[in-house]
Amino acid sequence: MDLKKYIADIPDFPEPGVLFRDVTPLLADKDAYQESVRLLAEFGKDKNVDVIAGPEARGFLFGCPVALELGCGFVPVRKPGKLPREILSKTYELEYGHNEIQMHSDSIKPGQNVLIVDDLLATGGTVEAAVSLIEQMGGNVVGIAFLIELEALKGRDLLKGYDIYSVLKY
Amino acid sequence: MDLKKYIADIPDFPEPGVLFRDVTPLLADKDAYQESVRLLAEFGKDKNVDVIAGPEARGFLFGCPVALELGCGFVPVRKPGKLPREILSKTYELEYGHNEIQMHSDSIKPGQNVLIVDDLLATGGTVEAAVSLIEQMGGNVVGIAFLIELEALKGRDLLKGYDIYSVLKY
Repeated sequence: MDLKKYIADIPDFPEPGVLFRDVTPLLADKDAYQESVRLLAEFGKDKNVDVIAGPEARGFLFGCPVALELGCGFVPVRKPGKLPREILSKTYELEYGHNEIQMHSDSIKPGQNVLIVDDLLATGGTVEAAVSLIEQMGGNVVGIAFLIELEALKGRDLLKGYDIYSVLKY
Repeated sequence: MDLKKYIADIPDFPEPGVLFRDVTPLLADKDAYQESVRLLAEFGKDKNVDVIAGPEARGFLFGCPVALELGCGFVPVRKPGKLPREILSKTYELEYGHNEIQMHSDSIKPGQNVLIVDDLLATGGTVEAAVSLIEQMGGNVVGIAFLIELEALKGRDLLKGYDIYSVLKY
């Protein structure tokens, strides 16, 4: 199944010069969505995964079904102000400015095997920050799975030493 | 299975006087998460559902696994500025101020049966706005399923005439 047929290429979004890979046609097609989740889950299935972590909001689109498929729990990695209990927070640099992610400070138990799932690997900043919080809580990042990888942005360089899988490479 | 044991009650979040129902312990427990998704999907299974629609971000947590469980596609209902193609937009009133949701204008095909899934029914404003956009595109809202319903806020009154289900009532 050629899943790239279900990714819409949108020039100049969200800003001029950026080619946005829109996953909404893939989500809307039951066969393409199911096949994507199957492939992501297959990457995780021999890793003794205890829990899936996924960044808000598009990471939820793939991470949650993968959690159900693997019979795991799901831990959301959220933007600031969304989590009501005690949190850990990590700020990371963007080309202009910075971003921040948060996780509940008890969301990963020491020794748990964590599979991170997100829609897109670009520069890798969000996922690197998530790895840092998960390891701070004593979790083992046993793999990182993306639907899409933008190879030119070299996100893998930021995530050296981790087991990375992407369904679609551009 | 007593799913309410997996909902954390957080007083005064996000503002004083509000009792926030935190679903993250439920998500983290594979059995509780699986049972929740099973119950939500069961509500949809005899409705000839073509597609699940779910509001950002917590609607994704439940709507996406339900889509996979029912063998449907998923259509995200998003906050402004997130969708890259032609959109429909709907503004709705809050107690103080207003909110806006957006959907791609081709995301629902005329005649499609749509099941809306969200984590929480409070006043019902978000889902009423989503219903309005779905019907504007010619979709049939065949049901609306929530994990949690806050009965005192009377969200059902705003959604009269629709088939509504909630897993947990408070």
